[in-house]
Amino acid sequence: MATLLLNADMGESFGCWTMGQDEAVLPFIDLANIACGFHAADPDTMRRTVQLAQQHQVKIGAHPAYPDLVGFGRRSLACTPDEIENMVLYQLGALDALCRAEGTRVHYVKPHGALYNDMMRDKHKLAAVMKAVAAFDISLPLMLMATANPAPSQDLATRHGISLWFEAFADRAYDATGFLVSRSLPDAVHHHPALIVEQARRIATGEPLSACDGSELRLQADTLCVHGDNPESIAAVKAIRQLLDTLP
Amino acid sequence: MATLLLNADMGESFGCWTMGQDEAVLPFIDLANIACGFHAADPDTMRRTVQLAQQHQVKIGAHPAYPDLVGFGRRSLACTPDEIENMVLYQLGALDALCRAEGTRVHYVKPHGALYNDMMRDKHKLAAVMKAVAAFDISLPLMLMATANPAPSQDLATRHGISLWFEAFADRAYDATGFLVSRSLPDAVHHHPALIVEQARRIATGEPLSACDGSELRLQADTLCVHGDNPESIAAVKAIRQLLDTLP
Amino acid sequence: MATLLLNADMGESFGCWTMGQDEAVLPFIDLANIACGFHAADPDTMRRTVQLAQQHQVKIGAHPAYPDLVGFGRRSLACTPDEIENMVLYQLGALDALCRAEGTRVHYVKPHGALYNDMMRDKHKLAAVMKAVAAFDISLPLMLMATANPAPSQDLATRHGISLWFEAFADRAYDATGFLVSRSLPDAVHHHPALIVEQARRIATGEPLSACDGSELRLQADTLCVHGDNPESIAAVKAIRQLLDTLP
Amino acid sequence: MATLLLNADMGESFGCWTMGQDEAVLPFIDLANIACGFHAADPDTMRRTVQLAQQHQVKIGAHPAYPDLVGFGRRSLACTPDEIENMVLYQLGALDALCRAEGTRVHYVKPHGALYNDMMRDKHKLAAVMKAVAAFDISLPLMLMATANPAPSQDLATRHGISLWFEAFADRAYDATGFLVSRSLPDAVHHHPALIVEQARRIATGEPLSACDGSELRLQADTLCVHGDNPESIAAVKAIRQLLDTLP
Repeated sequence: MATLLLNADMGESFGCWTMGQDEAVLPFIDLANIACGFHAADPDTMRRTVQLAQQHQVKIGAHPAYPDLVGFGRRSLACTPDEIENMVLYQLGALDALCRAEGTRVHYVKPHGALYNDMMRDKHKLAAVMKAVAAFDISLPLMLMATANPAPSQDLATRHGISLWFEAFADRAYDATGFLVSRSLPDAVHHHPALIVEQARRIATGEPLSACDGSELRLQADTLCVHGDNPESIAAVKAIRQLLDTLP
Repeated sequence: MATLLLNADMGESFGCWTMGQDEAVLPFIDLANIACGFHAADPDTMRRTVQLAQQHQVKIGAHPAYPDLVGFGRRSLACTPDEIENMVLYQLGALDALCRAEGTRVHYVKPHGALYNDMMRDKHKLAAVMKAVAAFDISLPLMLMATANPAPSQDLATRHGISLWFEAFADRAYDATGFLVSRSLPDAVHHHPALIVEQARRIATGEPLSACDGSELRLQADTLCVHGDNPESIAAVKAIRQLLDTLP
Repeated sequence: MATLLLNADMGESFGCWTMGQDEAVLPFIDLANIACGFHAADPDTMRRTVQLAQQHQVKIGAHPAYPDLVGFGRRSLACTPDEIENMVLYQLGALDALCRAEGTRVHYVKPHGALYNDMMRDKHKLAAVMKAVAAFDISLPLMLMATANPAPSQDLATRHGISLWFEAFADRAYDATGFLVSRSLPDAVHHHPALIVEQARRIATGEPLSACDGSELRLQADTLCVHGDNPESIAAVKAIRQLLDTLP
Repeated sequence: MATLLLNADMGESFGCWTMGQDEAVLPFIDLANIACGFHAADPDTMRRTVQLAQQHQVKIGAHPAYPDLVGFGRRSLACTPDEIENMVLYQLGALDALCRAEGTRVHYVKPHGALYNDMMRDKHKLAAVMKAVAAFDISLPLMLMATANPAPSQDLATRHGISLWFEAFADRAYDATGFLVSRSLPDAVHHHPALIVEQARRIATGEPLSACDGSELRLQADTLCVHGDNPESIAAVKAIRQLLDTLP
């Protein structure tokens, strides 16, 4: 992957409830992380989202989560590695079947919410996710967070025979280790469009970011996570897309 | 399929709750209908059940259902054909992913409980199930009930490009159309072992059964549904297995 | 109840997903039918909705449903009367506990969606709902549909010792028996504001409506069901409120 | 409470799945902790369990849990105190409504599994449970674990205006602070009947126990937690009941 791909969460409606503006964002992204029914979505929503992604020629990723609709998969659940491995396999297969019905397939895996955070902090949980991906289709990349020290994740992935896609964030402040500054702290989230686009540019070109302690932070990222929740975030996606298209 | 295959529902435990005696029945059957998490089972139970089926060289079928754990999938839910198609795809894919992790795959599909009954009575629902099976893997047979007039189901299957496996019951009384006598009526269920084995023999050899009105009922069956809920039913499975093994 | 009360469904958000414009409608209604977690809402949503209803001095009703979040309680589920009785009790008690924490209580019961429709068509299901209401608090009225012949429902309520509140609809066409014309038929739903307000006026004053076959339909209604889904329906609620306030 | 009461978890079946031997244990206990549908049980199971407890004149306690049927409420879920308060209220009210239908009511509250453990370790979560109990019915005692230092819990309860019932365990080893030795360590669970009965006797009479480090541990307990999972545990319950009946 020479260029930075844009990924966004998609298909997070549930039954009669809608969320996100998938159709407004799809024209500008490359990768759609589609909910698999555990934190959001139901089989009908998944099918419709796969259709939409197909129409926009956007690659589909599975976005598996802890089983927690009420908490939208954002609350950590104390699961064993075996439970994680099997719940990821279950969701991956479910989405892939709906993809097959639309003539496509799952192209990568990005865990959602608390499961994503937990696997970034606990190598047993990360290994469980990797085992699931490898068992389902060893050619599928696993998307996880670009940090200052990607070696441990990379080593684990090599051991499981899978490839990784590292993702970065244009609208979040980083600490010196390359982890995100907690949303409970001031200035954790960038709101100024110019700041967001500049951070995207640095990530795309490999220039260092300024961590919150002032130190230089170098992140190697394959993809940038963007959002389509509201007009501001959609405007930011468009601006980032334009920027990327102008980079040499 | 020259010989009558034995199929049984498997993997119907859920979380900490156990159901069925899967290990006692697996040595005597050919086909395991494995619950997919909507009426019973969870990803861990599914994984363990796939392992067990593998150990006994029993073919795995997906056993999708309406989303109703409390009612064990036995309560009809007024779903549209599209909803049925997508929920069958979802469950099929989920089980297949857990099969892949054990080096196998789903070999056929048999809907469960109220979904099975509803598709036997409503051709739009049957077509929805067929669309799901065809979209997932057109080589997978769909298991449904052998009745006196299989032509309509067969025609629909031909139109969707899939094959059918017709199943019969050794322990249930039939009406003249080949539907099961309702459990709410007397003598709907056979309890005497000799009667069950004799009905199995007739089905296996193509001899007519006596319907509850005394008429002759001819059923063409590929498979026989057996149960492993209690010692009596397991004894019946063994007796039927012995019988089948002695048939020419 | 001398005057016609306005009731509306409230608290139909779920987790991170929002639905309805509760705050826009509450100033104009008398009765809030609050979802109890089976078709919509979760404990936090219920608590917040109870707080809102309290702030607007609107009476709280329990709005129990079949357990079907994906289908929003709109799909009939084949439950036994005992199952219905117990699921209504469960939901009623759950909402009442959240009311207690806000210094109030449940004042009436109105089943939701498919459960409402099923109880209007099946007296065993209606009796099951009545048993639940009577067992929880015999002073709570049960809200059901005003039809041309309310006597059977009234007799059943008398036998269970509970009172009824009959509700009518200002924006729906009726057939000659006082049942709603199916939404799948043309002209089932009134969209013209003047037509809706005129139907509300007739219901409020006891004048007959025109059924879809042209016959006169007399409905005795205690309450009118209104909606707060979109700007049009909220405008209709305001217009009906103004009308009712001017009636002698 | 002068004498030690025996409490046991009850009503942990779910839909078609059964768990526990409630009828075998009920004759020997004083307090039944009844599951409320979040970790086990459904409205029908709850109703039947309330009936059983009534028949044996056993007092009913609500046994609320995190929403996790698959994990039986044993997996910690990262909930906020507000979420915990509202989920406890919801479950408490639901069970109380089913009690009302059987002419009784909830008499106390004992959180289940991971929620119980989390509230023992986090005073914000404990306060959330207390707020729920106080809001529902300030006369209901909250059951929690007797430890070497009950003062902090007691102070918090006093501030919320509720009373506490401290429970101890006859079949578990304790550490010096009065917390249970983790099941992952050797000798965490007593299996020898004489040892279990002797520990029950010490707890009942106020004699100190031997903590796992050999130190003396004094626990002030109002109730003893017993189990009815298997013949051994039921035999232990009977032996403890006989012992308690012979104490002066």
